[in-house]
Amino acid sequence: MDKSAGALHRPPMTDTSPTRFQTFTASTSPDQGPPRLAKLREEMAAEGYDAFIVPRSDAHQGEYVPARDERLAWLTGFTGSAGFAVALKDRAAVFTDGRYTLQVRSQTDQGSFEPVPWPKTKLEDWLAEALPRGGTVAYDPWLHTMAEVTRLEKALGPKQIGLRPSENLIDRIWEDQPDAPVGKASIWPDRLAGRSAAEKIKLVAADLAKAGHAATVLTQPDSIAWALNIRGGDIPHTPLMLAFAILHSDGQMDVFTEPSKLYGFDLPNGVAVHRPEAFKPALEALHGPVRLDPSVTAAAISATLEASGIETVAGDDPCRLPKAIKHPAEIAATQGAHLRDGAAVARFLHWFDETAPKGGLTEIDCVRALEGFRSDTGALRDVSFDTIAGAGPNGAIVHYRVTDGTNATIRPGQLFLIDSGAQYEDGTTDITRTLPVGEIGAEEREAFTQVLRGMIAVSRARFPKGLAGRDLDALARAPLWAAGRDYDHGTGHGVGVFLGVHEGPQRLSRISDVALEPGMILSNEPGYYREGRFGIRIENLLVVIEAPDLPGADDREMLAFDTLTFAPIDRRLIDRDALSALEIRWLDEYHREVAEKIGPLVEGPVAEWLAKATAPL
Amino acid sequence: MDKSAGALHRPPMTDTSPTRFQTFTASTSPDQGPPRLAKLREEMAAEGYDAFIVPRSDAHQGEYVPARDERLAWLTGFTGSAGFAVALKDRAAVFTDGRYTLQVRSQTDQGSFEPVPWPKTKLEDWLAEALPRGGTVAYDPWLHTMAEVTRLEKALGPKQIGLRPSENLIDRIWEDQPDAPVGKASIWPDRLAGRSAAEKIKLVAADLAKAGHAATVLTQPDSIAWALNIRGGDIPHTPLMLAFAILHSDGQMDVFTEPSKLYGFDLPNGVAVHRPEAFKPALEALHGPVRLDPSVTAAAISATLEASGIETVAGDDPCRLPKAIKHPAEIAATQGAHLRDGAAVARFLHWFDETAPKGGLTEIDCVRALEGFRSDTGALRDVSFDTIAGAGPNGAIVHYRVTDGTNATIRPGQLFLIDSGAQYEDGTTDITRTLPVGEIGAEEREAFTQVLRGMIAVSRARFPKGLAGRDLDALARAPLWAAGRDYDHGTGHGVGVFLGVHEGPQRLSRISDVALEPGMILSNEPGYYREGRFGIRIENLLVVIEAPDLPGADDREMLAFDTLTFAPIDRRLIDRDALSALEIRWLDEYHREVAEKIGPLVEGPVAEWLAKATAPL
Repeated sequence: MDKSAGALHRPPMTDTSPTRFQTFTASTSPDQGPPRLAKLREEMAAEGYDAFIVPRSDAHQGEYVPARDERLAWLTGFTGSAGFAVALKDRAAVFTDGRYTLQVRSQTDQGSFEPVPWPKTKLEDWLAEALPRGGTVAYDPWLHTMAEVTRLEKALGPKQIGLRPSENLIDRIWEDQPDAPVGKASIWPDRLAGRSAAEKIKLVAADLAKAGHAATVLTQPDSIAWALNIRGGDIPHTPLMLAFAILHSDGQMDVFTEPSKLYGFDLPNGVAVHRPEAFKPALEALHGPVRLDPSVTAAAISATLEASGIETVAGDDPCRLPKAIKHPAEIAATQGAHLRDGAAVARFLHWFDETAPKGGLTEIDCVRALEGFRSDTGALRDVSFDTIAGAGPNGAIVHYRVTDGTNATIRPGQLFLIDSGAQYEDGTTDITRTLPVGEIGAEEREAFTQVLRGMIAVSRARFPKGLAGRDLDALARAPLWAAGRDYDHGTGHGVGVFLGVHEGPQRLSRISDVALEPGMILSNEPGYYREGRFGIRIENLLVVIEAPDLPGADDREMLAFDTLTFAPIDRRLIDRDALSALEIRWLDEYHREVAEKIGPLVEGPVAEWLAKATAPL
Repeated sequence: MDKSAGALHRPPMTDTSPTRFQTFTASTSPDQGPPRLAKLREEMAAEGYDAFIVPRSDAHQGEYVPARDERLAWLTGFTGSAGFAVALKDRAAVFTDGRYTLQVRSQTDQGSFEPVPWPKTKLEDWLAEALPRGGTVAYDPWLHTMAEVTRLEKALGPKQIGLRPSENLIDRIWEDQPDAPVGKASIWPDRLAGRSAAEKIKLVAADLAKAGHAATVLTQPDSIAWALNIRGGDIPHTPLMLAFAILHSDGQMDVFTEPSKLYGFDLPNGVAVHRPEAFKPALEALHGPVRLDPSVTAAAISATLEASGIETVAGDDPCRLPKAIKHPAEIAATQGAHLRDGAAVARFLHWFDETAPKGGLTEIDCVRALEGFRSDTGALRDVSFDTIAGAGPNGAIVHYRVTDGTNATIRPGQLFLIDSGAQYEDGTTDITRTLPVGEIGAEEREAFTQVLRGMIAVSRARFPKGLAGRDLDALARAPLWAAGRDYDHGTGHGVGVFLGVHEGPQRLSRISDVALEPGMILSNEPGYYREGRFGIRIENLLVVIEAPDLPGADDREMLAFDTLTFAPIDRRLIDRDALSALEIRWLDEYHREVAEKIGPLVEGPVAEWLAKATAPL
């Protein structure tokens, strides 16, 4: 880490140089949709389909997909990270959740695509109403999970609507469809992973053997990356290699992907790489029982096995939990990455404090500056997601992505919400801070303090082993609830180590029943959003630990959280009187740690600024 | 309410007069078991059974059962409120949960009955290990739910162990088995219920009609009591009439019970009372589909319908939710009952404070005194459960029931935990207070304050509509968790209005997914137990309400709790410095309300004592 480089870096507000990892251009327009929809309908007519489903997902069900799989955006113009379209002969609809209600209207042609609120309106109900008995709904079985297809079949069967697996009709009409990515993968060193790929494969193969399963099909790229100790280059922001794999209970593993990605690799004994075309024949040659995870496995895979008469059993991807429970070496690695990132964030926060009050600073300026400070570390591999940078009312849009068209100037009296993260070889970060410019109103300070209290309650939580995210979610919300407020997103998501910034199965959320275990990394990010006015979110990453001994404690296993993220929380937004003594103690202790850990990594004016920003309340 | 009577009543410590509603004698002894087990085995041999299951439950799956149904206690000596026995040819076991580990060992003959920890060891696993393939397990299908039998069949079938419905073999050998109870029922007035039985029956019949179900079988006595606006006299402590009923979607209702219980009643049009023997033929004459609730319906009922070829559908007892969501008239009624009860409790607390320091006071003295104060109101119908009154170490036994054998003298320096309730015509109460005698140690005060903070957090909670008990349970525990402590019971249970002190489906518990709704009554009773030393619990009843408007609140539906229970919480046990300003404000405001509501109902020294006990902290 070169400290001086960061300290000197001051992106001018007028910097128009492109960031390396984030763009601000709108990639689609509403008028692209109607002619493409017309072409799709010609293909549907030729096949005799009454409906064709176009999902956002690729064959691996990831959050980010390669350009080749951006079929939903290509057809409709809608670029959100979740949703799907359905084309009928004379109607078409785009289904999106509440985060994207406004965006879908601005990005798609309203005359061609009806926006449908989802999951309020279920696909199966919409289809059942729109189609006659005897209708045929076609879908690409590589893009839908076994569970999805089962659900649709169960709902549509009684209405005599048929569900037909099909070639992908979009691929047939998309003339300049990009090729599948062939990003070069790289070894992720054992010293960071803490154990070799051979050890990991042995571990999960033993799980299969114990259950009496002959093999499993791995479809999740992060499971494959974890098992092989590799990182890929196929997907923006997440170092994944797109691939399928068959893991056998004897520890043999067959990986199906473009071999050039892994050219020259030393893979463990028993791991063989095959071209993608070899996947289907390999499935057909398996002996059962084969474990499939219906929630993530493409329906095409189970259909292939079943057509060959191979027994399948529903069960979890055996890599999922071992991957989520990080090895101590992974924890140590990501702790280092978080200190590096914390220093870059401190430089950014100092720069923002110096620059914003002068006026004219825009959201994009801030995204560029922050990426610049992270690049200056010399270790940045990518941002871990498109930075969310929202001034005033834009802060209230939970998944706001700034473009040249929406780029707002940050004005005095506004809050600025910035949610960002980095991919370093040794860890993945994700941090949100909410920053004041000039004098901030009492309501914003009151809400900020409530959000902070919830965030502290989770950070301080100590809880019996066996509890899931659902059991703890209320702690983050109670201070807001007491004021009649709440936020409409989960409190936290799982985070990988130089892997997905969103990973399962762990979550801090009302919908998560997965017991928390030591070594799991989670975000802790309560927020508050006042539509049209402001947004607040405070986010640190935490790692689950065995709770330290306490005098007078019960003889029972308890867990706690250790904080990974170190950066000041803005003291100017805190209503000190609304905090309890314990809450003030936590914040002062956190800031003392920030000063102790980040202070030595910054110099000069940044170090002076940091000392003030981390002073006791 | 006669105030003076209560104020004058001072049960002497040497009072040996029997309480009306609670006894202190041990009703069983371990040596009764072996000869009865031998007789049971003779019957089993005659029938060719390898095993016979003896559950605690009766045909209505209630928590309390009539003497006739105390088969488990009769056979084994074990009198706990949950558990079951299994007799094999050469072994026998009593399955009990953690609350009864000690009790089962003291009440049963260890040479005859193995104690088995349950649910850690499942019945099906124990049977599969103990029995050979081809073995036969017999059970009385009236005493097991459909869901239980399905579960056992599924687990034992693959082991080739047969499950055989049978006549009850205990009834065959129990010579002086009591008769079924024929307690006279009484009308529960419409002014308390808020709506007539006719209205209620119309409401639930409409639910059946809407679902396309021709009828449902009601097996829960509280559902029948609720629907008919009656209260019964068949069960100690809970005003239930044991009966079955068939409710038809056209609003007709057939009730099967000893008709003398309802003699002279004006039941709504369309309600017919039949002798119990008419139940089976009436089932056989039904036309389907008949809705059955598998979690509460005796397997004998579904078997009878299926044998007659009548279609059944799984679904909820349609009375369950409307019963749990109390009518405003019921809320108003129970509010009145709680004030009456609060005055009796205040008299008790004053008496305890005067008497306990003099020495020699026993647990039974306190149970007698409290029942006496409640009797003095002239309105007491019953206690709502056997009072739990534990001094020092006995307080740590969560379900402690004092007997002449265990009756402890309350000594200086000890905590005394007293958990009790009353049945009045207008409401059911349930309150726990923990009281100091003399100087109390720092650890007890620390833990008491943590329990109080959790209890306050629930009392103050405001939360979005749609949340279940599970989503709130952490609020009650977080202060204990922070100290490495917890308690091994739920935070709260549903409570009826002159009905069960435990009622479903609402709970404040990690195992409850039932959304809370305005009108539901719940207990709020966090605790802390130090085995061999002390127990702490603080319990008020709450009713769910629509949260009052707040300035600055979101436009979202939120709920809150209104407190029903008014009695001082002992200020001497509180470590004031460990409370936040908001917690102190809640407690002072609660005590102000106690003084305001209960003060006018007590006189003289009790009133003086109450003023001091409710002073601001």
